[in-house]
Amino acid sequence: MDPDRLSVVLVSTRNPLNIGAAARAMCNFGFHHLRLVHPYDPAFREARSAVGASSVLSDAKVFATVAEAVADCTLIVGTTVIGHRQLQHPLHVLKDGASSILQELATPPDRPSRVAILFGSEKVGLSNEDLSHCHWLMHIPTGDEQKSMNLGQAVAVCLYELARDTATPLPSAETPRASAEAVERLSTVLLETLHASEYIGADSVESKEENIRRLLRRMQLSTDDASTWLGMLRQILWKLRAKN
Amino acid sequence: MDPDRLSVVLVSTRNPLNIGAAARAMCNFGFHHLRLVHPYDPAFREARSAVGASSVLSDAKVFATVAEAVADCTLIVGTTVIGHRQLQHPLHVLKDGASSILQELATPPDRPSRVAILFGSEKVGLSNEDLSHCHWLMHIPTGDEQKSMNLGQAVAVCLYELARDTATPLPSAETPRASAEAVERLSTVLLETLHASEYIGADSVESKEENIRRLLRRMQLSTDDASTWLGMLRQILWKLRAKN
Repeated sequence: MDPDRLSVVLVSTRNPLNIGAAARAMCNFGFHHLRLVHPYDPAFREARSAVGASSVLSDAKVFATVAEAVADCTLIVGTTVIGHRQLQHPLHVLKDGASSILQELATPPDRPSRVAILFGSEKVGLSNEDLSHCHWLMHIPTGDEQKSMNLGQAVAVCLYELARDTATPLPSAETPRASAEAVERLSTVLLETLHASEYIGADSVESKEENIRRLLRRMQLSTDDASTWLGMLRQILWKLRAKN
Repeated sequence: MDPDRLSVVLVSTRNPLNIGAAARAMCNFGFHHLRLVHPYDPAFREARSAVGASSVLSDAKVFATVAEAVADCTLIVGTTVIGHRQLQHPLHVLKDGASSILQELATPPDRPSRVAILFGSEKVGLSNEDLSHCHWLMHIPTGDEQKSMNLGQAVAVCLYELARDTATPLPSAETPRASAEAVERLSTVLLETLHASEYIGADSVESKEENIRRLLRRMQLSTDDASTWLGMLRQILWKLRAKN
C-alpha cells in the first residue's frame, strides 16, 4: 500500500491539541497528508506553531468545503463511533473498513486510487452534509458506557488499524532456549543440592526427583538463564558441602 | 475475556490531560481499573476534578511503587514504542501481545489471572526498574519518522487492539439488494429512455444494450435505490414521449 495516497481530513476541528494529536498519530504510523476543512482559525494557527510541530502540520492544506477537500479522491470514508443510529450509509466496523481501504491503496500505479478518511468535529462529529460526500462509513467499536471518542485517539486508532499488518516483524530479543543437555546438567546439580540440603530425604526419592525435572523443563530457560542458574546452584552446593 | 481482570497502570504521568485521555479510552473500550504509580500530584488532582471525569478516574488507585501497583497481578506487561533497543525482555508486537493477554483474561473463574499493562511517563517511558517487574514487553509498531507516541493515544491503541475482535458485529445498515426482476424492470425502462432520447440510435443496438445491462448490474443497487431510479426514469421517459 502507498501511504501517500491517503489523506486524513479533519472537518471543523476546534481544539488545537486535537489537530496536533492527529498530526502526531499520522507521523507515528507513516501517513503524511493532512487536510483541514474550515478549522477554527486560531486553533489551526496554534497547532501549527506548537513546539515540535511536524512537517505533516506545516504541509497541511486548508479547504472551505468537504467537496473541495476530497475532490481528487476516489474513495471517501466517514468515521463514526455511533453504530446504531439510522445511518443512510453502508457501515463497516473499523477492521473490515480498513481492509477495504488498504485494497484501494494498493491498486496498480497506472490507476492510482486516492482515499480520504473524514473525522468530524469534537462536539457533533460529521454532519449529514459531510456524510453525503462519503461512499461508506467506518465505525470504531466503542462500548455503550462511553461511545464518544477523543478526536486524537480516534485518528490514532484508525491509522494503527491501517498500519497494523504492515508492521515489520520484530527481531527476537530472546536468547535461544537451553539445550536438553544444559537442562539435564542443571537438573543434576539441583538434585545434588536438594539432597545435600536434605530437601529430598529418604522418602519417595524417585517421584520427587521426577517432579523437579518436570519443574525445570516447564521453566523453558534460555541458554543464558540456564547457565546463570547452574552457577548459582554450584556455588550453593559447594557451600553446603563445605559445611558438612 | 473478563475486562475487570485487566488494570491499566500509568507510571509517573505528569500531564493531567493524558491521565484523562487514558481514562476515556478505558471507558470507550470497556475497561475499568486504572492504577497510578507516583503520578505528579497536581496532575492527578486536576484530571480527577475535570468536568465529565469518569468513574474510572474517581475509582483510580494511587500507589507509591510499581511493585505495589501490580502485586495482585499474574501477568505484567510493559509497553514500548522502541522496537530495536537492547531490551532485556521478550518483545511482542502489539497484536501478538494482545492475543496472549486475551488468553490470560480468559482463564476459568476458579483460577482467575489478573493482567497489568504498564505505560511509562511522557518523557522517558518505563525505566529499567519499572521494566524489571514485567514478564514481557509489548511494542506498538510506530514508524521511524516518529516513534514516540502520545500517552493517551498509546493507551487507546492498546485497548482498541484488546477489544478489536470482541466487538459485536454491526447490523447491516444496507437495505437488501434489488432482485434480478427489479433490475431487469429498470433495464427495460432505461433502454426505452435511451431509445426515446436517441442515445441509442440505429447502430450496434445489441452491443449497446448489453453494455447498459452490465452497467446496471455493476451498480449492485439496493431495493430502495432501484425503485428510486425506476421512478426517475419513468418520469423522464414520460416527459420525452410527451415532447414527441
